[in-house]
Amino acid sequence: MDLKSKIRNIPDFPKKGIVFRDISTLLQDKEAFNHAVDRLAERYLDKKIDMVAAIESRGFIFGGALADRMDAGFVPVRKLGKLPYETVKKDYTLEYGYATLEMHKDAIEAGQRVLIVDDLIATGGTLLATCGLVEKVGGTVAGIAVLIELSFLKGREKFSKYDFHSIIQYESE
Amino acid sequence: MDLKSKIRNIPDFPKKGIVFRDISTLLQDKEAFNHAVDRLAERYLDKKIDMVAAIESRGFIFGGALADRMDAGFVPVRKLGKLPYETVKKDYTLEYGYATLEMHKDAIEAGQRVLIVDDLIATGGTLLATCGLVEKVGGTVAGIAVLIELSFLKGREKFSKYDFHSIIQYESE
Repeated sequence: MDLKSKIRNIPDFPKKGIVFRDISTLLQDKEAFNHAVDRLAERYLDKKIDMVAAIESRGFIFGGALADRMDAGFVPVRKLGKLPYETVKKDYTLEYGYATLEMHKDAIEAGQRVLIVDDLIATGGTLLATCGLVEKVGGTVAGIAVLIELSFLKGREKFSKYDFHSIIQYESE
Repeated sequence: MDLKSKIRNIPDFPKKGIVFRDISTLLQDKEAFNHAVDRLAERYLDKKIDMVAAIESRGFIFGGALADRMDAGFVPVRKLGKLPYETVKKDYTLEYGYATLEMHKDAIEAGQRVLIVDDLIATGGTLLATCGLVEKVGGTVAGIAVLIELSFLKGREKFSKYDFHSIIQYESE
């Protein structure tokens, strides 16, 4: 199935010159959603994944499905101030300034194998911060799985020491 | 399995006098997460669900797993300003003032059977607004499934004309 054809392109969102890759048209197509989850899962089904750590908010959609498919636990990685218990924190850079991601400090046990999931990688800042959070509490990053890779931003280069996997690539804006 | 025992109770969060029901301890326990998805899914597996509409952000975790289990499409229901395409909108009341939920106007086709999913019902404002969004575009609310029901707030009473299903109930704060 050509999953890229299921993505809706929205020019100039959220601002002029950016083409937003809208996954909601893929999500609402049951065959496409099912196939996307198949493609994300297949590489990791035999990799003894203990936990799926997914990034708020769209990452939760695929992360929930993948944790269920792999009989793994689910760990939410959220923006600052959303999690109610004690957390570990990691900053990541934005175009202007920075933001902070949090994960509960008891979410992952030392030595657990963690698959990190998000819907899209651009420059890779949030995914790299998430790797940092997993490792800070002693977890092992067993893989990073994203649906969409904006290849022209070369975010993948940040993850040369990890198993990095994307399903749909865009070579230009 | 006693799923309630997997929930972490956090007193005085987000403010004095409120006990926050933290589902992250359930999510990270793979048997508990799997069992919770089983319990949410079992009532609807033979109900010909076309779409799962889940509410941002924690609702996405269970919604993604349920859409995958039921071979349904997934529809995100989000806070104002997050969705990139044309939307339908519905206000819901908060303790002070109101907020707005949005759904893409082409997310659901007329006549499709929709299961609405969230992690928790308090007074039921966001779930009722979501029913309104589904019906505004011609969808049929085939069920409402939540993990946690704060029964003492009587939110369920708003949904007497729907099939409403919760897994864990709290009779008092």
